[in-house]
Amino acid sequence: MSNEHARIIPSTAATAIANPILVEVTRGDMVESRHRAAIAVVDARGSVVHAWGDIDRPVYGRSALKPLQALPLIETGAADRYGLGAAEIALACASHSGEPRHVELVSRWLAHIGSGPNDLECGSHLPFHEPSLEALILSRRKPDARYNNCSGKHTGFLSTALHLGEPTAGYIRHEHPVQQRILGTLEQLTGLTLGGAPRGIDGCGIPVIAIPLGNMAMAMARLADPDPHLPPARAAAAKRILAAMAAEPFLVAGSGRFCTRVMEVVGAKVVLKTGAEGVYAASLPTLGLGVALKVDDGAGRAAEVAMGQVLRHLNLLDADEETALAETFGPPVSNRVGRETGSIRPTGDFSF
Amino acid sequence: MSNEHARIIPSTAATAIANPILVEVTRGDMVESRHRAAIAVVDARGSVVHAWGDIDRPVYGRSALKPLQALPLIETGAADRYGLGAAEIALACASHSGEPRHVELVSRWLAHIGSGPNDLECGSHLPFHEPSLEALILSRRKPDARYNNCSGKHTGFLSTALHLGEPTAGYIRHEHPVQQRILGTLEQLTGLTLGGAPRGIDGCGIPVIAIPLGNMAMAMARLADPDPHLPPARAAAAKRILAAMAAEPFLVAGSGRFCTRVMEVVGAKVVLKTGAEGVYAASLPTLGLGVALKVDDGAGRAAEVAMGQVLRHLNLLDADEETALAETFGPPVSNRVGRETGSIRPTGDFSF
Repeated sequence: MSNEHARIIPSTAATAIANPILVEVTRGDMVESRHRAAIAVVDARGSVVHAWGDIDRPVYGRSALKPLQALPLIETGAADRYGLGAAEIALACASHSGEPRHVELVSRWLAHIGSGPNDLECGSHLPFHEPSLEALILSRRKPDARYNNCSGKHTGFLSTALHLGEPTAGYIRHEHPVQQRILGTLEQLTGLTLGGAPRGIDGCGIPVIAIPLGNMAMAMARLADPDPHLPPARAAAAKRILAAMAAEPFLVAGSGRFCTRVMEVVGAKVVLKTGAEGVYAASLPTLGLGVALKVDDGAGRAAEVAMGQVLRHLNLLDADEETALAETFGPPVSNRVGRETGSIRPTGDFSF
Repeated sequence: MSNEHARIIPSTAATAIANPILVEVTRGDMVESRHRAAIAVVDARGSVVHAWGDIDRPVYGRSALKPLQALPLIETGAADRYGLGAAEIALACASHSGEPRHVELVSRWLAHIGSGPNDLECGSHLPFHEPSLEALILSRRKPDARYNNCSGKHTGFLSTALHLGEPTAGYIRHEHPVQQRILGTLEQLTGLTLGGAPRGIDGCGIPVIAIPLGNMAMAMARLADPDPHLPPARAAAAKRILAAMAAEPFLVAGSGRFCTRVMEVVGAKVVLKTGAEGVYAASLPTLGLGVALKVDDGAGRAAEVAMGQVLRHLNLLDADEETALAETFGPPVSNRVGRETGSIRPTGDFSF
């Protein structure tokens, strides 16, 4: 894995070796579309247990990094200061669907820390959950920042800043202590110096920093297997984060969402988090492993199927769990008249 | 190009040569996601003028084939029987956004042929156009089949069946004369025997037949340059179809849609049609060429940028048109707080 990386030239020189085609979308007799991806499965010491494609190329982890970004919320003492429970910790790690329960809990949390929607700097958007979107439209109300899928994470940021007496305005900026603390956390967990790493701005306004998948997977493994790889306070925070996500799968995403469904079925064996542009990460405490994957073209449908295939082949699921997740891991494609026309599935090459 | 093709084995054997990366999505300092594609630019005799990637691999053209699928509407005499104008012909070729004008014109056309929404077999869905979607929800009405983006095409199918005295029920089925006529039309335009081609079911219920991009582009070139490559009646129908689409760009798609925008700016020089799963096709009458492209992973955002790059490099646009379409061809990516975070653009490799 990379211990450092040069600044990336933002053009696409011909990539020497293409990432493998791991997910295909069928329609009738034929494969209609194909998705290439890279996947790293790594332990807490950094040993690569399985890899597909180029796991050294830097990747924006996007929301898949939220469990790591939530560590300061606990480590600074903010979570204890405000008496935050599993629900809030899970929301701090969430890309939620904007359903009533998500919005209500974020509202209460904001009020509890003496804050409000206007202090959130993530912007707003309509709920991902279609019935909640329709209900909001029917109510003739516009969504505010609480409906943003990242609003829990941002409420966590506010909580930390308020707890430490830092000014909250501009907390999304790279230079702000909230983001600098996260940068330091990511450096320690990934084993990288990230000051020179490729950077950008995320959908919710905070910085994105590019990290190779191998290092990202190691960071997730360190959450899964924290003793003795993390200092005691960080190890305790890691356990608290994974426990909260596993206890509140609905809050981490929402109705019908892939990661919610998986965690509802398999519980704390698999704690997983999706990221935009085809990223997925997971901490596997019973195996002491971390997973990080990126679909080259950014497709979420392929990232889900790829993650499902990794989990199946790591023998993490018992027979009942496999049955319960069969359609989640290999979803049918149906048309507008309700007829099944194909499926999204791992390719024959995607084996162990 | 292929003149025949063996049945495709629906697994993904390692593809010998990967299609080139032609479109990239940037965020800050780095390329975040990449899209591979194949593109064919072909003349009416079948000579390949430009090609990227594998233009011999069969592809489901999806809605990009609608201009070809509309030929029987005219050739059978149905269009003249019912006095159909440019609006109806354009709707027959449309993947419309379900805006009020789309739905109203389809409604009138159905009534005119003595039919109604219940005779459409395409299924229904909410409008693609978000304000129209919100208005429909606020009205507390559910969308019926007229709102389906393919409803114009299907009304054309009904028109043809009624004109010829065929039973309309089951017109979406492969064995129905309406679909068999289309199959014959595609065979003649692509120069292929399609009886053994890979098949499936489209989103709207009609058959999809896999055709190599090279042959698809030749078919589009034959629409663009019909004399003497098509028999007189078919040549007249081809001209009528392209003229209708160019005259009614809004009806072919809708507000803010890529193909509508392009045709609004460049008029009849470029008649283009999008298809699901990253397909785009175009007829270029002033050059006598056809274009057909498929993004491997199915992404529409990449198909649009790829088509734009092909049009730019064929020197089809004057300076004013290029300026007017600059953002359409290289759209910025913005986040939830309205900040520009990156762009979707052709790669450095995507040159002539």
